[in-house]
Amino acid sequence: MLPDIHRNESVFTWAAPPLKFGHGAIDEIGAEVAAMGAKSALVLTDPGVRGTGFPDRVREGLLGAGLKAEVFDRVAVEPTDRSIAEAVAFAREREWDCFVAVGGGSAIDTAKAVNLLTTHPGDLLDFVTPPIGAGKAPWLPLKPLIAVPTTAGTGSESTTICVVDLLDLHLKAGVSHPKLRPSLAVVDPVTTMSLPPQVTAASGMDVLCHALESFTSLRYDAKPAPEDPMRRPAFCGGNPISDTWCEAALRLVGQSLRKAVCSGRDLGARSAMALASTYAGTGFGNAGTHLPHANAYPIAGAVRGYRAEGYPEMPMVPHGQAVSVTAPAVFRWTYPADPERHLRAAEILSGQRFTATDGAEALPQVLTELMRDIEIPAGLRGFGYTEDDIDTLTEGTLKQTRQLAVVPRPLDRRAVAAVFSASL
Amino acid sequence: MLPDIHRNESVFTWAAPPLKFGHGAIDEIGAEVAAMGAKSALVLTDPGVRGTGFPDRVREGLLGAGLKAEVFDRVAVEPTDRSIAEAVAFAREREWDCFVAVGGGSAIDTAKAVNLLTTHPGDLLDFVTPPIGAGKAPWLPLKPLIAVPTTAGTGSESTTICVVDLLDLHLKAGVSHPKLRPSLAVVDPVTTMSLPPQVTAASGMDVLCHALESFTSLRYDAKPAPEDPMRRPAFCGGNPISDTWCEAALRLVGQSLRKAVCSGRDLGARSAMALASTYAGTGFGNAGTHLPHANAYPIAGAVRGYRAEGYPEMPMVPHGQAVSVTAPAVFRWTYPADPERHLRAAEILSGQRFTATDGAEALPQVLTELMRDIEIPAGLRGFGYTEDDIDTLTEGTLKQTRQLAVVPRPLDRRAVAAVFSASL
Repeated sequence: MLPDIHRNESVFTWAAPPLKFGHGAIDEIGAEVAAMGAKSALVLTDPGVRGTGFPDRVREGLLGAGLKAEVFDRVAVEPTDRSIAEAVAFAREREWDCFVAVGGGSAIDTAKAVNLLTTHPGDLLDFVTPPIGAGKAPWLPLKPLIAVPTTAGTGSESTTICVVDLLDLHLKAGVSHPKLRPSLAVVDPVTTMSLPPQVTAASGMDVLCHALESFTSLRYDAKPAPEDPMRRPAFCGGNPISDTWCEAALRLVGQSLRKAVCSGRDLGARSAMALASTYAGTGFGNAGTHLPHANAYPIAGAVRGYRAEGYPEMPMVPHGQAVSVTAPAVFRWTYPADPERHLRAAEILSGQRFTATDGAEALPQVLTELMRDIEIPAGLRGFGYTEDDIDTLTEGTLKQTRQLAVVPRPLDRRAVAAVFSASL
Repeated sequence: MLPDIHRNESVFTWAAPPLKFGHGAIDEIGAEVAAMGAKSALVLTDPGVRGTGFPDRVREGLLGAGLKAEVFDRVAVEPTDRSIAEAVAFAREREWDCFVAVGGGSAIDTAKAVNLLTTHPGDLLDFVTPPIGAGKAPWLPLKPLIAVPTTAGTGSESTTICVVDLLDLHLKAGVSHPKLRPSLAVVDPVTTMSLPPQVTAASGMDVLCHALESFTSLRYDAKPAPEDPMRRPAFCGGNPISDTWCEAALRLVGQSLRKAVCSGRDLGARSAMALASTYAGTGFGNAGTHLPHANAYPIAGAVRGYRAEGYPEMPMVPHGQAVSVTAPAVFRWTYPADPERHLRAAEILSGQRFTATDGAEALPQVLTELMRDIEIPAGLRGFGYTEDDIDTLTEGTLKQTRQLAVVPRPLDRRAVAAVFSASL
């Protein structure tokens, strides 16, 4: 037998929570929580989503099923260590049998953190992925968590990951463990109909990048075998199952994102985007995102004055904008890793035909046209960054070891800096 | 608001166990069981599969991880109420923290029943779906169950269903509940390489019919809304997620089943069939199978003298043969329910082009050619049935209410009898 260093990975893993999808699904949450044997549930949401009425509709469903229920609506859009601490303090005021997150990735990620920190001693940094945090694994049972995504973007309803902005470190970082995965995802496309165009565009680009990054990620069997099979990385790399779902999601986004942005009450387009987002979470979430998502962390974390239309009045780069802004440059750079796959992605997304003659420009061009049509910022200067920020941004990206593990070609500081330069 | 009788279903559900897929996955079971906190595990298998060495390899892995482990190898191929009672009696001799099923649907279904009946009082008929049994739902926690399918056929590793032959009633019947779903599916394509051609053919046809039936099943939103959303039927009907998986499975079966039957050590073909079977279980198992599977129960249950090559020396119709024998006649009859969908299935499966001119014959023709190539019985007479058996078979089919709920056109006794007549 060859020494282990010569052996490649031969196994991929896949997991997703049970799903309930469709109109009216949100009205079945009380019955679902009661069937889990819970007597009380805390609904977590943000002020904007509370304004849509859906969190209170969920609370009424819980009360109607005979449960005690309250709504906590001070989730921060793009949660921070401080906003999570506030939610944890609220949740600790009484014992909750179940958590229900209603909103975008912010609400769902906050609920994951609240679930973790109300069932375990310690603080968030104990659980944050190294090298930023201590990377502890939860060792106690968590409570059931029902995720009700309302943005058709995050995929957080299906993943094991919680993303948080560490304010003092000026960094976005992640906590990831299978126990953080929600117990049930409830996706009701009607909840996405009141999203403003800018939020629809940004969350749609998050879905799209999630699909493109998983589709082009390092293949699971092109990595070295793990030393301990029980300590595989969170992202297992591209595989036949993730491919199937990435292609299905790319097709839906290509057909429906422009419509959903332009015509928010087009229920067909909204359902297609909700389905595409579900595919991202359910189908390929654990294949892995790579450089665009890694870049998004410092882009959002180091924000100065940028304010995004459709979002709260505070300096922030919405996650979907931070992810997509470097995507064209990233996929131009990853093209040689698998030209056919990049051309195929461009074809599925656009419905056009591309050949090797179109080369590395095909996919960036399709992305740039889409981003122009849905009016999403196409350059880092739009967020207030200049050449002087490239070192800081590059430094932040290089800390995202989870994402960098499935970048499909060898990566160094120079390559990351070049992507940022090309994305100014 | 309209009375409920006018309201259609608007929600579909989907769930699957976590998956570990690939070469060497079978050697990680000890570590997986230890990580669940179990101290002991019972491996269930049949004598034929034990002969391949894989069940003992699993046992050694369990021992190596510091667990107590034994192998029970008297699972019956096509389990009966009596063979299950024997397995339950064996399992009750000591306390087991975990069950590991290694084999085809027989081993996995037996392990589900053993898990149920060692954690609950009562006997199998208490839990069998009405009208045959009392249809009780399990009310206590079950033990973790790891399913290791070795036949690339059943999909049982992912489903909530256990199928059993009730000897005195001359009927196949099912027990179905979400708690029966395995905790983890471990699929290692290498375990399928020693399957004889006839078993490869029959289990491959089971995968194929599973995909075709789910793809053509009554759509989830073409059914009346449930009175109680927590008591939806086990099969939710065709939906966008099941469609995606079905198409992917049909493509793999069309490309690889002939190769896997003719050339058993073609690892590419074996991996493709293992993947297709996983898609069946993971992806669309809960959309629903319909008439071919409903017909399979009386066809297998009423067997007289038929003996199948490659299977144990006893009268039996292997499940995959019982399912596929009426499939051509069924899909000729269901064609009008959705002509485009039937033509598309024929196209994906065969790689040929079909148009409305080919009509209802396209899919039956593709199926018949495949069944001829892999030498699987194409008529009920091959199993020893005659015109005189049609009433008995029809009677048996009409009892399969779970499957009949998603037949895509109105069904009566005459239609079932006509399918059986056409399949003689």
